[in-house]
Amino acid sequence: MRVSFLGLGVMGYPMAGHLVKAGIEVRVYNRTTSKAEQWAKEYAGQAFATVADCVKGADVVLVCVGNDDDVRSVTTSTSGAIANMKAGAILVDHTTTSANLAEELLEAASQAGLRFMDAPVSGGQAGAENGVLTVMCGGNQSDFDAMQIVFDAYAKSSVLMGNAGQGQRAKMVNQICIAGVLTGLSEGLLLAEKSGLDVHTLVDCLKNGAAGSWQMENRANTMAQDKFDFGFAIDWMIKDLGFCLEEAKQHDLKLPLTEASTEAYKALSAEGLGRMDTSVLLKAIRKQAES
Amino acid sequence: MRVSFLGLGVMGYPMAGHLVKAGIEVRVYNRTTSKAEQWAKEYAGQAFATVADCVKGADVVLVCVGNDDDVRSVTTSTSGAIANMKAGAILVDHTTTSANLAEELLEAASQAGLRFMDAPVSGGQAGAENGVLTVMCGGNQSDFDAMQIVFDAYAKSSVLMGNAGQGQRAKMVNQICIAGVLTGLSEGLLLAEKSGLDVHTLVDCLKNGAAGSWQMENRANTMAQDKFDFGFAIDWMIKDLGFCLEEAKQHDLKLPLTEASTEAYKALSAEGLGRMDTSVLLKAIRKQAES
Repeated sequence: MRVSFLGLGVMGYPMAGHLVKAGIEVRVYNRTTSKAEQWAKEYAGQAFATVADCVKGADVVLVCVGNDDDVRSVTTSTSGAIANMKAGAILVDHTTTSANLAEELLEAASQAGLRFMDAPVSGGQAGAENGVLTVMCGGNQSDFDAMQIVFDAYAKSSVLMGNAGQGQRAKMVNQICIAGVLTGLSEGLLLAEKSGLDVHTLVDCLKNGAAGSWQMENRANTMAQDKFDFGFAIDWMIKDLGFCLEEAKQHDLKLPLTEASTEAYKALSAEGLGRMDTSVLLKAIRKQAES
Repeated sequence: MRVSFLGLGVMGYPMAGHLVKAGIEVRVYNRTTSKAEQWAKEYAGQAFATVADCVKGADVVLVCVGNDDDVRSVTTSTSGAIANMKAGAILVDHTTTSANLAEELLEAASQAGLRFMDAPVSGGQAGAENGVLTVMCGGNQSDFDAMQIVFDAYAKSSVLMGNAGQGQRAKMVNQICIAGVLTGLSEGLLLAEKSGLDVHTLVDCLKNGAAGSWQMENRANTMAQDKFDFGFAIDWMIKDLGFCLEEAKQHDLKLPLTEASTEAYKALSAEGLGRMDTSVLLKAIRKQAES
């Protein structure tokens, strides 16, 4: 099996590396060529300067880039993957995008005699580096089955959520849940702070009960220490929550918490905190609480 | 050690039972006497018709009743526990109350030559029945240590959070976190519903990641089935969140999510859903989302 990987960011770089370690032949492309060359050196793989050259003859093309337009530029553009892949090959998009884009890509891939699956991941940079991501897939069962050998290289689990777009919609639910957990955790920690409770003791006490969450277990202590320079950047969260609100709008749904969180993250980003972890929401909620 | 237990509701009834099973001599009192008699029959214990008779000679008096005034009526009133306990005995309040009440009880107990600890629990009715509650304590270390033999009968863990009142404040943080988790989960599930995602598959996919929570693992599926007739009643949650807002106000803190959740629960209770589990928040958020 020959796999081409487009996009070597903090996620794609280690994911492509895991494929090499799994014994798969990997060709890579990255917009900034030097990053692709660095990767090729580190993993004794092959880097290409254009998408067309990279995907030529590949059985599987994996994409992991930034936003919807970044995906379009490496897939549906005239110099993109779809125009250059061999018939019957599969295009898998690991980028978190709008569900509409997933449907657009399915359409374009089908017309070109290709297969397509949207497959956003969760688990963050650490999950990518340790090969323990979760993959949320939108596509058909046989393509999903065929992709297991690939996903297994960097994911601890992959789940088929439905047709194209449903992987993206599952990821949206994931992000909305995170926003809710962090909003409650922030208000709770503010009260704890004012009350003089020791957060470490508090978390130990609460984490296995009905208030428990991954964020409480993994972020409450760093939040109490005002430590946010790591983890999942809020600039990406703003993008992801934007997809949620766009999707909700298409269903005439109002999601006040998701909206409020998006606004809070935008305000934090405007203050220059765009690269901080999503748990930095505490700062916005503190400001609001004390105003 | 002789223990008196005041309040045999859905929590107190099984908690007092666990003490008997642990070999402790237990005397009980309940406002509705028939319940105390039923308990005494089931556990071959002793029921008393008045608080004064129940607590006479006890080393430990445990309280688990409804609200602040219910606690006062069995503790600080002239016919209450404090006026009738033997010198040096300890009064432990398992009721979820305001932090101010805990401080008031410490004062009253101290003046009467008694010891006091606030010790609200989490884990719900199932936790009480299975003897796996978590106890959040406010008091001093030696009293906390002395109470371990009692708590061990019905709790899987107990944590000393600080001086009197800090157990209650830890419980407040717990309830705020639950409100946040459930708000996000509700908005997420609404989007999932509209998108035609299968919630069972979705939860399996998300529960171990950054969006994961106890509520997602234990309530998302029942929420998707519109099943709320179990668990922790929102009428109690309204009371608890009221304490949170009262405490926040004393620190000049605004907690918008906690406020919004309280209002949503009050609206649900007004519709006759007061006995439903806190996950019924979904209904309020659905109404809002579709309005």
